[in-house]
Amino acid sequence: MTITITAFERSPDRGRGLARDMRVRWALEEVGQPYEVRLLSFEAMKEPAHLAHHPFGQIPTYEEDDLALFESGSIVFHVAERHTGLLPDDANARARAITWMFAALSTVEPPIIDRAIVRFQERDQVWYEQRLAMVDDRIKQRLSELSDRLGDAEWLDGTFSAGDLMMISVLLRIKGTGILEDYRHLSAYVARGEARPAYKRAFAAQLAVFTAASGD
Amino acid sequence: MTITITAFERSPDRGRGLARDMRVRWALEEVGQPYEVRLLSFEAMKEPAHLAHHPFGQIPTYEEDDLALFESGSIVFHVAERHTGLLPDDANARARAITWMFAALSTVEPPIIDRAIVRFQERDQVWYEQRLAMVDDRIKQRLSELSDRLGDAEWLDGTFSAGDLMMISVLLRIKGTGILEDYRHLSAYVARGEARPAYKRAFAAQLAVFTAASGD
Repeated sequence: MTITITAFERSPDRGRGLARDMRVRWALEEVGQPYEVRLLSFEAMKEPAHLAHHPFGQIPTYEEDDLALFESGSIVFHVAERHTGLLPDDANARARAITWMFAALSTVEPPIIDRAIVRFQERDQVWYEQRLAMVDDRIKQRLSELSDRLGDAEWLDGTFSAGDLMMISVLLRIKGTGILEDYRHLSAYVARGEARPAYKRAFAAQLAVFTAASGD
Repeated sequence: MTITITAFERSPDRGRGLARDMRVRWALEEVGQPYEVRLLSFEAMKEPAHLAHHPFGQIPTYEEDDLALFESGSIVFHVAERHTGLLPDDANARARAITWMFAALSTVEPPIIDRAIVRFQERDQVWYEQRLAMVDDRIKQRLSELSDRLGDAEWLDGTFSAGDLMMISVLLRIKGTGILEDYRHLSAYVARGEARPAYKRAFAAQLAVFTAASGD
């Protein structure tokens, strides 16, 4: 079985590990599955060959034999379901870990993505500062609630799971903004994720792609 | 086994079926599982008893014996995984149906939620019309891509699945805005969802809650 994922030929985040292929790389490293990467230009992402795999023309996709998937949440879940290491064996604990995956993507990530939209698409608008403050308030509400739940626990629900992998991936998008740093439990939680050997291997792999592309 | 979900005591959508308990009700109706509903005021949603079940203080939650879950995506998946009718038996088809659940929640829903935020929180801002147009452009891009994929097929990938249930639930939020109506394949797709007996039973059940509360 060969696993092939897609990633940006030249990631807009300049190798900071924020593109969504990072989540899939991290999951594959956690479960010890080797994978190949097909790099795509922005033009190739909108061409029919890629749209056949990803109707929204984004990365990552995942191919394994005759199965093709898209959406980082779905791919991480697929990897977690088929290999040991990302979902607990106990049925209830497993359901709760999956709940945290959905919470990361549906409840915590949207205002964080909205912040990126404000910063990149609305920077020249007269409303920029006011909108940014409104979005930051929405992010802070979520972080406050998440921090209350996490407390000083190591992970969200017992052992490290795909739920933590996804939540930490989402929180990494606001690392260094000062927002995350106001929540010391969450900062420490993100740092624990980054310290995992599997995270480090995945990070190095995606950075190597950007470094190679920049040296063209 | 008794299943108990939570829902708004008085839904802000006035019984239009857009609150997220509707997705869970629909899933439970599709698989033929009876359930009980605990209604919550906005105050009760932020109290410790509810926050213990839902760290973000929202609805719905799901309780079954000693398992408590939150996030409509996670709950629908849990129901789909444990009962027949919402996920295909074939492993690859099942993985693709789950992909559509994540696509609905992570890729299609965020700009649609953003539209609601603009309409309810930014209506009095000088930028209102301009922001609404920007958000509508993002929604239209997603609808266009989704419509291209769906074409004139009945459902997104073969038989009706939890992926369709979630995608249709998301699209229903913009029914009647004129945006959805510009995509005839998607309008027909949503109408097929609404025509399902399980959808109708779930819709009637949530409307009955609102009607009863309004008659106080």
